[in-house]
Amino acid sequence: MSKRFEICLAGSGGQGVITAAVMAGEAASIFCDNLYAVQTQSYGPAARGGSAKAEVVISDEPIDYPKPVAPDLMICLTGDAAAKYARDVKAGGRLVLDSFSVQEVPNVEANIYQLPLIETARNKVGNEIVTNMVALGMVARVLELEGVMQPEAMRKAMLDRVPKGTEELNKKAFEEGYNMFKDTPAHI
Amino acid sequence: MSKRFEICLAGSGGQGVITAAVMAGEAASIFCDNLYAVQTQSYGPAARGGSAKAEVVISDEPIDYPKPVAPDLMICLTGDAAAKYARDVKAGGRLVLDSFSVQEVPNVEANIYQLPLIETARNKVGNEIVTNMVALGMVARVLELEGVMQPEAMRKAMLDRVPKGTEELNKKAFEEGYNMFKDTPAHI
Repeated sequence: MSKRFEICLAGSGGQGVITAAVMAGEAASIFCDNLYAVQTQSYGPAARGGSAKAEVVISDEPIDYPKPVAPDLMICLTGDAAAKYARDVKAGGRLVLDSFSVQEVPNVEANIYQLPLIETARNKVGNEIVTNMVALGMVARVLELEGVMQPEAMRKAMLDRVPKGTEELNKKAFEEGYNMFKDTPAHI
Repeated sequence: MSKRFEICLAGSGGQGVITAAVMAGEAASIFCDNLYAVQTQSYGPAARGGSAKAEVVISDEPIDYPKPVAPDLMICLTGDAAAKYARDVKAGGRLVLDSFSVQEVPNVEANIYQLPLIETARNKVGNEIVTNMVALGMVARVLELEGVMQPEAMRKAMLDRVPKGTEELNKKAFEEGYNMFKDTPAHI
């Protein structure tokens, strides 16, 4: 049977969710031997200053329908994004909410993780701009737990696309995210 | 009636077609008041060292079907990409082929433009790495000719996403591409 895994990264414009999603798609398709990926972002006029959402579908078979049906993993970096998209998460899936930005925990039938992505980027790594790489490390950890993909592929895809000279900063953020995710939800 | 314009950028991995497509999508959705965009890339295990393809659909209405049906504009940066994808271009649409890389001109019912994108990036701008920005300038010019979008939106989206310190290089490449496109096809 084919294995399909859907990821949604949601935040505000400028938080780099598209970049992270592109990297996740490339990790699966370019740096793994047996996986297919489709990566999408769609936005309307409301995108300016509003919510940004990027999606990745990974499968071990060619992908017919390119949009996520119900994300297995959803990461929300702002309260707005959570209010708008969190409900889409698959029943029994994983919903990660940034603990600094998302005040209101949505009522969904999923494993909910409240984790300090933004705070970690800002204080532990030293630059809020790499919040998306903290999120990417978290995605890598979940894909590993699910048996979809080895995290090494994600590291390679990440280093392949970050601007020269910023590798260490991004790598540090990635590892913080990877290590932060323990599979013990705050709610279910 | 709604206006839908489909763009496909095809080349090899590392030529930056995804980056250019992301910028085109953001130009429409974030830097224009009235446009929607969906940007997609899909790839399989063959992506490694093979062809890369990125697509953008722009519309003045919310977009139901996110994948291009038949691109109005297709830009091919390699012979492989042309052999694989050129046939998808819409009948009567525009097919741009890099004149250095694409030796074989496909037999399609479209306006065909053989233009030196790679050579311009390499020799006139001074770095082949900005070939994708030459292509983006060309996309901006075509969208202007079609009355879809003002090129200023594309310039803003481009400058918003290039790494700090590379603005001038990328801008130069963009303007070269913009000015290179004269609407007189080599074949029809």
